[in-house]
Amino acid sequence: MKVLITGGAGFLGQRLARKLLELGALTLEGRRQPITHIDLLDVVRNDSLDDPRVHCLTGDIADVQVLGQALDRDTAVVFHLAAVVSGQAEADFDLGMRINLDASRSLLESCRALGHGPRVVFTSSVAVYGGRLPDSVRDDTALNPQSSYGTQKAIAELLLADYTRRGFVDGRVLRLPTISVRPGRPNAAASSFASGIIREPLGGEAANCPVAADTRLWLLSPRRAVEALVAGCELDASAVADRRPINLPGISVSAGEMVQALREVAGDAVADRVSWQPDERIARIVGSWPGRWDCARAERLGLQGDGDFAAIVRAYIADDLECTKP
Amino acid sequence: MKVLITGGAGFLGQRLARKLLELGALTLEGRRQPITHIDLLDVVRNDSLDDPRVHCLTGDIADVQVLGQALDRDTAVVFHLAAVVSGQAEADFDLGMRINLDASRSLLESCRALGHGPRVVFTSSVAVYGGRLPDSVRDDTALNPQSSYGTQKAIAELLLADYTRRGFVDGRVLRLPTISVRPGRPNAAASSFASGIIREPLGGEAANCPVAADTRLWLLSPRRAVEALVAGCELDASAVADRRPINLPGISVSAGEMVQALREVAGDAVADRVSWQPDERIARIVGSWPGRWDCARAERLGLQGDGDFAAIVRAYIADDLECTKP
Repeated sequence: MKVLITGGAGFLGQRLARKLLELGALTLEGRRQPITHIDLLDVVRNDSLDDPRVHCLTGDIADVQVLGQALDRDTAVVFHLAAVVSGQAEADFDLGMRINLDASRSLLESCRALGHGPRVVFTSSVAVYGGRLPDSVRDDTALNPQSSYGTQKAIAELLLADYTRRGFVDGRVLRLPTISVRPGRPNAAASSFASGIIREPLGGEAANCPVAADTRLWLLSPRRAVEALVAGCELDASAVADRRPINLPGISVSAGEMVQALREVAGDAVADRVSWQPDERIARIVGSWPGRWDCARAERLGLQGDGDFAAIVRAYIADDLECTKP
Repeated sequence: MKVLITGGAGFLGQRLARKLLELGALTLEGRRQPITHIDLLDVVRNDSLDDPRVHCLTGDIADVQVLGQALDRDTAVVFHLAAVVSGQAEADFDLGMRINLDASRSLLESCRALGHGPRVVFTSSVAVYGGRLPDSVRDDTALNPQSSYGTQKAIAELLLADYTRRGFVDGRVLRLPTISVRPGRPNAAASSFASGIIREPLGGEAANCPVAADTRLWLLSPRRAVEALVAGCELDASAVADRRPINLPGISVSAGEMVQALREVAGDAVADRVSWQPDERIARIVGSWPGRWDCARAERLGLQGDGDFAAIVRAYIADDLECTKP
């Protein structure tokens, strides 16, 4: 069977592809199905995966012709990761609408046109929540996004649910905690600092934390995120029939605790590279997100989070920092 | 100032226009503003309102050129009532998406292009709720639509909230209970019977109730619905700043109690014209809607529902039945 990953050149897409190549198969409704072909669709090319099963497609995901090339009757699974990140969707409303909403809808339409109801795993976000929130949000807490990004993700969730109900696709929505520690460079996500305040100091650079030290974040490591994408994909349809969106387990950590964990793992000299200049715009967006989720349902479904943040920092050092050293 | 009513040829649009003509002005942010012009936009023409302030525009509301003609810099208020009803949106998915979602978005985009942030009053529906529900749904109960109509309304609500947050429009969402008793003929709404089982027997015709007698409905009379549209439009922006959608007050009545009220008001011979043949498709859609709302917020905001269902039947006889008699 074929697997399509949108946003396949991105950091999560690449890791997911590597994981799928390693696994060699996915179990769908109790049947183990070998992966013969992985299409990585993105606006930029990323040829870092050297495997005959991997095919890179470059193009605009909002373009139905590009989607037409990326999907065919052998496509059994689509991981839809492509998105304009939160800060960028807030700064450029039309771009966010085109990629986060229109392209998601075009993808669902293209899947519908295939006729065989492919499985679609869609990554959503903590940003669908906002306003006055309970101490711990649940999978069925009301969506109340306070950003255009969160609005677009919430709308795509609703579309996926209706396309699933009608049998056009077999959709699953995985609401990702903020991913930390992301490798690479800072991006336009409002949560970019949640990786930067760990990654940059470990790389010998200064980093600024734009939110107050007591701001709580709900975090998941890249390693666990990829495992959750695979596990979420493999859930039987009957297990998520009542409600498609699943809030993935994370850990609730304050920005101050994150830097404290860095201090424990890497020492004072590294942790002291973090400065604390507030940024009102970022603090407002991040402050509207819940700092803790009730993950009882995800855990019942077998999805797992991380132990503690120090373990996440150590995993980053092992998975990413070591292998990028000269 | 100018007022635009989409779906202006429909029963609610016509009643609202008549009410606005009678009022002559709307109070927006404490300022009484005379209504000089009412545009009624719809796919069909309805010239029943003979008043120089009324202008009928015929066209497809999903067509941005038509919207361009319907809006200008003097348009201060838009009542967006145009929609494909629930049963039709379920039967024809693409039509529902085009009118309930694409046209709503085009309308918001056209309002944004005006630059002055017109007030937009959007009518949403009980159908945005579904699944396991609390005994009494609140304005902030999670949306979980179980129909394409409910999905499309929920998406339009989210868009309106984000367009409002960004200052493109000043939006208000009024979630309407099922309107009963609607005059006219049956339509493709799943809730069409909620008017039919009263209207047809009073008109001397037989009517079928497709849901069980104990199915609870949440109802509002046309008279109160129009009053709520005006009152909702006139709410100060500060009063709804925390959450734009408002669940309008209704009364919780079972199908059996509705026919019993008809019996009390009009006698056995009339009530006995109702038959009880179940229709699985309609029962499923209507059964997914909540039968009772917590309206504390709406009532705090000054929005009012009806007394009891017998009073609604009497109001229908007074407002509609009498004036259609030869």
